[in-house]
Amino acid sequence: MGKSLTHKIIESHLVSGNMIPGEEIFIKVDQTLTHDINAVMTYLAFEAVGIDRVRTECSVSYLDHNLLYVDNKTPDDHIYLQSVAKRYGVHVSRPGNGICHSVHVARFGVPGKISMGGDSHTPHGGSIGMLCIGVGGMDVATAMTGVPMRLTMPKVIKVNLLGVLKPGCNSKDIILEMLRRVSIKGGLGNVYEYVGPGAEALEVSARATIANMGAETGATTSIFPADEQVRKFLISQGREQDYKELLPDSDAEYDGFIEINLSELEPLISCPHQPDNVKRISEVEKRPVQQVFIGSCTNASYSDIAKAALVLKGHQVNENVSCTCAVASKQIYKKLMQDGYIDMLLDAGVRMLEIACGPCCAIGQTPATKGIAVRTTNRNFIGRAGNPTAEIYLVSPESAAATAITGTFATAEEILGIEIGKLAEVKEPKEYKIDDGMLIKPLPEEEALEVTVVRGPNIKPLPVPDAPQNYLCAPISLKGQDNISTDDITPASAEFSSMRSNIPLMSQYCYHRYAPDFAASAKAMGESIIIGGENYGQGSSREHAAINPMYLGVKAVIAKSIARIHKGNLINHGIIPMIFANPADYDGLELEDELEIENLLEQIPTRTITIKNKTRHFQFDVKLEITDNEMEVVLNGGQLTYLKKQL
Amino acid sequence: MGKSLTHKIIESHLVSGNMIPGEEIFIKVDQTLTHDINAVMTYLAFEAVGIDRVRTECSVSYLDHNLLYVDNKTPDDHIYLQSVAKRYGVHVSRPGNGICHSVHVARFGVPGKISMGGDSHTPHGGSIGMLCIGVGGMDVATAMTGVPMRLTMPKVIKVNLLGVLKPGCNSKDIILEMLRRVSIKGGLGNVYEYVGPGAEALEVSARATIANMGAETGATTSIFPADEQVRKFLISQGREQDYKELLPDSDAEYDGFIEINLSELEPLISCPHQPDNVKRISEVEKRPVQQVFIGSCTNASYSDIAKAALVLKGHQVNENVSCTCAVASKQIYKKLMQDGYIDMLLDAGVRMLEIACGPCCAIGQTPATKGIAVRTTNRNFIGRAGNPTAEIYLVSPESAAATAITGTFATAEEILGIEIGKLAEVKEPKEYKIDDGMLIKPLPEEEALEVTVVRGPNIKPLPVPDAPQNYLCAPISLKGQDNISTDDITPASAEFSSMRSNIPLMSQYCYHRYAPDFAASAKAMGESIIIGGENYGQGSSREHAAINPMYLGVKAVIAKSIARIHKGNLINHGIIPMIFANPADYDGLELEDELEIENLLEQIPTRTITIKNKTRHFQFDVKLEITDNEMEVVLNGGQLTYLKKQL
Repeated sequence: MGKSLTHKIIESHLVSGNMIPGEEIFIKVDQTLTHDINAVMTYLAFEAVGIDRVRTECSVSYLDHNLLYVDNKTPDDHIYLQSVAKRYGVHVSRPGNGICHSVHVARFGVPGKISMGGDSHTPHGGSIGMLCIGVGGMDVATAMTGVPMRLTMPKVIKVNLLGVLKPGCNSKDIILEMLRRVSIKGGLGNVYEYVGPGAEALEVSARATIANMGAETGATTSIFPADEQVRKFLISQGREQDYKELLPDSDAEYDGFIEINLSELEPLISCPHQPDNVKRISEVEKRPVQQVFIGSCTNASYSDIAKAALVLKGHQVNENVSCTCAVASKQIYKKLMQDGYIDMLLDAGVRMLEIACGPCCAIGQTPATKGIAVRTTNRNFIGRAGNPTAEIYLVSPESAAATAITGTFATAEEILGIEIGKLAEVKEPKEYKIDDGMLIKPLPEEEALEVTVVRGPNIKPLPVPDAPQNYLCAPISLKGQDNISTDDITPASAEFSSMRSNIPLMSQYCYHRYAPDFAASAKAMGESIIIGGENYGQGSSREHAAINPMYLGVKAVIAKSIARIHKGNLINHGIIPMIFANPADYDGLELEDELEIENLLEQIPTRTITIKNKTRHFQFDVKLEITDNEMEVVLNGGQLTYLKKQL
Repeated sequence: MGKSLTHKIIESHLVSGNMIPGEEIFIKVDQTLTHDINAVMTYLAFEAVGIDRVRTECSVSYLDHNLLYVDNKTPDDHIYLQSVAKRYGVHVSRPGNGICHSVHVARFGVPGKISMGGDSHTPHGGSIGMLCIGVGGMDVATAMTGVPMRLTMPKVIKVNLLGVLKPGCNSKDIILEMLRRVSIKGGLGNVYEYVGPGAEALEVSARATIANMGAETGATTSIFPADEQVRKFLISQGREQDYKELLPDSDAEYDGFIEINLSELEPLISCPHQPDNVKRISEVEKRPVQQVFIGSCTNASYSDIAKAALVLKGHQVNENVSCTCAVASKQIYKKLMQDGYIDMLLDAGVRMLEIACGPCCAIGQTPATKGIAVRTTNRNFIGRAGNPTAEIYLVSPESAAATAITGTFATAEEILGIEIGKLAEVKEPKEYKIDDGMLIKPLPEEEALEVTVVRGPNIKPLPVPDAPQNYLCAPISLKGQDNISTDDITPASAEFSSMRSNIPLMSQYCYHRYAPDFAASAKAMGESIIIGGENYGQGSSREHAAINPMYLGVKAVIAKSIARIHKGNLINHGIIPMIFANPADYDGLELEDELEIENLLEQIPTRTITIKNKTRHFQFDVKLEITDNEMEVVLNGGQLTYLKKQL
């Protein structure tokens, strides 16, 4: 039988292990990326390891998320990140150059390579036939040391795309359809490999939207073949030499199969408060929209913005709507400007924000109280936009533009009518003007050694946990529901994001909105345990969602299931991730119940641990769904200690 | 003897009083403007008055300052401001349309009119021969009721400009030279009327920089004649019909005279921490600059940005500098884009921010810890940029651009060399594309009456002070130095600005950086008195610098001198402004001294009040430098109570 593209790439990078789904394998990582609001801890960890230079083909530090600089903390972080990159041979993409995923694919991405990024939307690069995996910051630090990375061998699911999107539909509607079908945890342990005539016809930017937001299914990553579309894209970037065709074998074997007929899709909308709550726009009750945002890594490509502009052309943003737009990169902005699209947006009354991630993760443009926000972004969790009373809906840029005009949920067809066909004429540029002036290249090693790393007063050392003790007896400091997101654990906003280099400060706001008393009570408890439902820790890859609870004394999370990246982060930062052997045991636990584990160190290797609820006098079992290597890390109390021993 | 332009305009608007410097006069006000971060209190006051519609020729509410929306408060404020404007017949300039002063001059300004604006840089409109005065928000509310406005008749100072600016010098260097000469309080009680061949040659945008930043001298306002330059400007705005020539008589009498030979000016720089600390750039020690900002109402015109772009063309922003730019209006942005200047800025690595006031008043782009910021803005007070450890230097856009390239203080000539002459070729556009799509016109009155005003949860009622009691005995809650600014009293930032519609919340941060314990101790004292030095309350017109202390129980401010707008705000909000009869008495007073005033109500009309320091057992006198009308307001406990009685 033939091989999937995913298998081919993994095989070419395999260092050890068997490529059997669920088994632990070790792979060589070619590239890493980080972005400003997650990266300080990553580079602090890398510094702590003590090697002199990154050992990847290419590592890039993007300054793209928190460009508001509402106080000194973020500019201080940016100075640190720029200097530490210089010291250790990391490329820097300066503020204003663009959103990490968009710039990375355009300027660094190479088909067939493996990249790990400290951001959950790293799979964006799957659009050009790279295998790109979102991980926690400590994993990125590890990858930068050149150590082979552990990975649970995923199942590879073939997603066969048939037909052609109707004009007014966007590849966003394809990934929303995927989410509708497989749910926000349906992708766990999977790689989605998109093939078929429908996939072939999609340009790289359209593929990127799908690969990017595949993260919302919980998948390990998503990937498209490196085919003629990828060649065209790399030519437009002046990088044809980086192209090589990479396709799955025609008789490739897959672990699962999904088929979507694009011709049948309608404009879709993801309703509050989970990305898989997907409906047709036409069936959603019309309510007044307060805010529209067109942008983010998911949907701010040239085509995305151009199509939104064409919908808005000759119209005016509704008087009651605040409509903002942030383009993905300087390169794209300049091309849109040249082709008249920025003019169209300005003429329609769209507010052009700085080129950055911006409002997606609440770095500005918080909706008004109880405001309805319609966004082209990727997540609609409660509070994701900085205001827990707001409702966030996710749509394509075309639909967002129509919504901005009408002031309520609308499709492009409602605005353009029979002229809707003109949207299909928008194509990605054949050629971009290449200007890497905002990328800082690594220094030669001998010069790099001379660089002084600059640390602002807000940058506090990375806390390093102790190894677990044999006896644990601790109360429950939080009992959460299903689908707790990392936004729930560590809120996103300009203010909170700027605290990410200061765990003593940021930990005070752990679970700030979800359970306002958590930080104080966990601290008072000294040691404690968190109870979660299904899909605990979904969403962003931010490892602060593990570091902060660890800092507050949390020793274990017991949940019905744990999202992939977050599980890795818990392990890396010394919190043991435990899964209820019998999910019904969740119901018997309450806040402040005293849980006792005897002989923990002997039980860990058995992957089943017996816990006694001393308050309610019953016992229950939990499983450790961790690999052999992860078990080593757990027993060492986290990745940093383990890694230092390895090197 | 002939008349100055200022006299002509005042005379044509005089309702009562004698036009003798220092005397109280009452004038008709034609236009008002407000902006978002000061305006909520203004419109709450206007609502409280109880009339159905504004009674000016034109009132405009600009949403331009706090567009970051770091939480729900500001978007809620914007919804309130938009709805209250609709209810009462006020124009709205939506977010993204541009900075109030720039848009107002372009779209509403008319030579010979009088405008009052709730922003200290309202004198910007003096660039087209309007008499534009910055006042507190309560004064704007009063002006909107159509009541004649009190004004202390200013002295009119002739500023004769000779010669021609060298290329690489900007009109910013003219106003910096003025500041160097007259100081930050030298303008108190003055109108500066700019005439002479040097003035004639300045385009409206260059005049605006001077008129705008005349505020930093403490002047009542600054003005230029409505001459051929103004006609050209109004033609470019499609408003030639609004032009009429308005010149001072050739034999006009003035109260003072200043002459500046523009040919002799060099590029200047205002050093920390007061705008009048002006030096030649060439004589300032070269230090590493961390941040450059090109923009603000003072320096973000077409010519300003185009010249900065020409300096930056072909260069790259220094690796260690964060360089941002925000253009003054959408109209200007579009023209700059069309003419290729936005491209030049982007190519050089300048970060283009949203069209707004932005970083000037710490709405984002806070410098790093101890960072040196070089800005084209108007104020460099400690903390003005959101970070009290930063140092702010003020320069022209040409010099700012050169600084961004070199990474230290520099002039355009250092970059352009013999090509410096090309800067002189930049002229304002002969014609702008006119698009008022982001201006919302007032509704007809009958429709307006039906509008519901929307109040978000952060909008708390305007606190209304009681009338003064006859006996006052209260401790000193703060003893400040000279030149306390309204930024010291009520810090500017995205966070603090968003509190301005909520006095109970915002008052907790009164004097937050200057005297962190003030709010708590003033509150604990119940009633108290503030002691200030010279030029107390300089800077921004924000009346919160009066309302917050009033809310905390402050009954009087005793200072060596008080800045004009702030004195008005104190009177309007029930705090009695007192001036030391003998400035040496300042030295004898200490924090927490108990001050006693007997027979206050009888003493007020005498304008001299005797105060007993019960702690240190001595007496001293203070003067009330207030007009008859202001005395009425004082005795009523503030303008709102007084105004309601009048109407």
